[in-house]
Amino acid sequence: MSSASLAKVAGSVKIAVDAMGGDKGPQEVANGVIAAAQQDSHHYFLVGDPNLLKPVLSAARPLPKNVEIVAASEVIEMNEQPTTAFKRKPNASIVVAARLVKEKQADGLVSIGNTGAAMAVSMLTLGRIKGIDRPAIAAPIPSSKGTVVLLDAGATVDCDPNNLYEFAVMGTVYSEKIFGVKRPRIGLLANGEESSKGNDLVKRTHILFQQAAIDNPHFEFIGNVEGRDVFRGEADVVVCDGFIGNVFLKTGEGTAEMLLQMLKTELMSSAWLKALSATLRPAMRRVRKQIDYAEQGGAPLLGVNGVCVIGHGRSGAYAIINACRVAEQAIQQNMLDTIRQRICLAPSPPPQL
Amino acid sequence: MSSASLAKVAGSVKIAVDAMGGDKGPQEVANGVIAAAQQDSHHYFLVGDPNLLKPVLSAARPLPKNVEIVAASEVIEMNEQPTTAFKRKPNASIVVAARLVKEKQADGLVSIGNTGAAMAVSMLTLGRIKGIDRPAIAAPIPSSKGTVVLLDAGATVDCDPNNLYEFAVMGTVYSEKIFGVKRPRIGLLANGEESSKGNDLVKRTHILFQQAAIDNPHFEFIGNVEGRDVFRGEADVVVCDGFIGNVFLKTGEGTAEMLLQMLKTELMSSAWLKALSATLRPAMRRVRKQIDYAEQGGAPLLGVNGVCVIGHGRSGAYAIINACRVAEQAIQQNMLDTIRQRICLAPSPPPQL
Repeated sequence: MSSASLAKVAGSVKIAVDAMGGDKGPQEVANGVIAAAQQDSHHYFLVGDPNLLKPVLSAARPLPKNVEIVAASEVIEMNEQPTTAFKRKPNASIVVAARLVKEKQADGLVSIGNTGAAMAVSMLTLGRIKGIDRPAIAAPIPSSKGTVVLLDAGATVDCDPNNLYEFAVMGTVYSEKIFGVKRPRIGLLANGEESSKGNDLVKRTHILFQQAAIDNPHFEFIGNVEGRDVFRGEADVVVCDGFIGNVFLKTGEGTAEMLLQMLKTELMSSAWLKALSATLRPAMRRVRKQIDYAEQGGAPLLGVNGVCVIGHGRSGAYAIINACRVAEQAIQQNMLDTIRQRICLAPSPPPQL
Repeated sequence: MSSASLAKVAGSVKIAVDAMGGDKGPQEVANGVIAAAQQDSHHYFLVGDPNLLKPVLSAARPLPKNVEIVAASEVIEMNEQPTTAFKRKPNASIVVAARLVKEKQADGLVSIGNTGAAMAVSMLTLGRIKGIDRPAIAAPIPSSKGTVVLLDAGATVDCDPNNLYEFAVMGTVYSEKIFGVKRPRIGLLANGEESSKGNDLVKRTHILFQQAAIDNPHFEFIGNVEGRDVFRGEADVVVCDGFIGNVFLKTGEGTAEMLLQMLKTELMSSAWLKALSATLRPAMRRVRKQIDYAEQGGAPLLGVNGVCVIGHGRSGAYAIINACRVAEQAIQQNMLDTIRQRICLAPSPPPQL
């Protein structure tokens, strides 16, 4: 019986949260987990240094009975090399959290620490889903037509067409299960919409995806999409290698940051506009909210043999709550089982151009 | 004697403009060229269908004497395959414009038509600068610290480290000559700032750039930069392959478009905000202006043995004027001669990881 189906039987799920990561420190993570726990009946393992976590938990009112501190004596720091750190620190918080999932005490894990470490530890502890060669981080992107899933956002930087095919299958399941999209349209991120566009990888992948659309009834390939199409919601799942995906996300973040800064500068440029800006603040806040990573909470690391949600290092308590919600939904919706079934419908091997 | 130095002797330069490209049609291009000509004493060749161009020119007041129509009976359409079209249409406007440069009647060319065609025709007609293997489009990007040059924006999608080295050298000269940056800082676009980050291409290029920084006094390599660093102006020249560069630009465009749309929707959401929005319009317009491609006018295609500026297909008259200004500056500043000198300072061959 998989951990996901266990969870369903129990009605509530069990989440292990690595409390020692994130820019804002363990107290912030603990506060997020406590707030999540106060809202529902799921069980939360708060993994980290009890000396730091206990005081936060004891001070919580109402005291949540569904939060349990699990001691972990070590921490993998942001600058540590993931696989080396994994070997050297068997009692690091992220390792202990992954072990809880491995041993089926928890149904999934959430981490906002060193992303590389969270990936390496999950892969090494939980292994891969059979049929998946490389993992992918599936980032939710706001668009004018709803949430678009972009993957890979940075787990696998050098890919072949088969990796991208697996990403597409996993992203489709994520889009269906978490965002309720009926028949997710798959787009291949490229430098032009025409099928002749793309670098060598994209051109070869395009051919493979066309074949997959014939062979696999769940594979709705709509062709190449461009960077700007993503925000217009022209596809539900956008597939690219982890290098491009990472550049994409950081470019979007950078553009938004620059634009909002410019607008702020403009609003401060005259006394009249300055007076207005107080009135505008709620509108600006609503725009920020729409593009805020904290609203999404976290991105699942797909391909790992266990539910693993990675949050932004800057996550505050609110983002932590949402990251826990993503993990809970993935578990309750049996996301991993569906990925396991779908990945069996593999296409023929990729053609060589 | 190069065309660039000819131009300097003459005091004014000669620009061939492909009048038949662009989403807004030949009249719009003609209007841009006429407006540019009215402001200076450079000579402009307006290349295209005289039946369309003559009426626009005759109607101009004051009538500019420095605009000359050069007949071209064919047009390479947006959807045509570039090299095939080049062979089939020897009298296409872009081919005639490139020939004017080849025959030293013009010092440079401007095109806002089919980008692929402009590149292919320029390369096939004018050839490459000796020592440059592949061309790059150098896109100017607004940042909080001035204009950043990003290249390649889409000319060469599959690159090796040596290609990227040549892009860096050309981009540095462009930054110096057109934007007046004294010692341009070169950044390598990657998925993290640490030198260990990057896909296989970026990792190999990083090592090559480190060596080049030792060997070449003009090569100020500052390491990897992330997508968001570009808008913060953390480098003056940002180097990447043409696939990534294209995704970068379109992602930035898409994010800005989405954000401004969201803001507009918010401002329309209540009568009170709606009333304010008229007051805000000038501020919004100034923000738009800062990020508008039309302000930059065009991006030079570097590596070609002649000055060639490519404008956005959506360019209106204003963007055309600015594209002509970019071409004029490149000619007057002897940009190509400097690239020729600098490319001789080639580094050792790239290491294989």
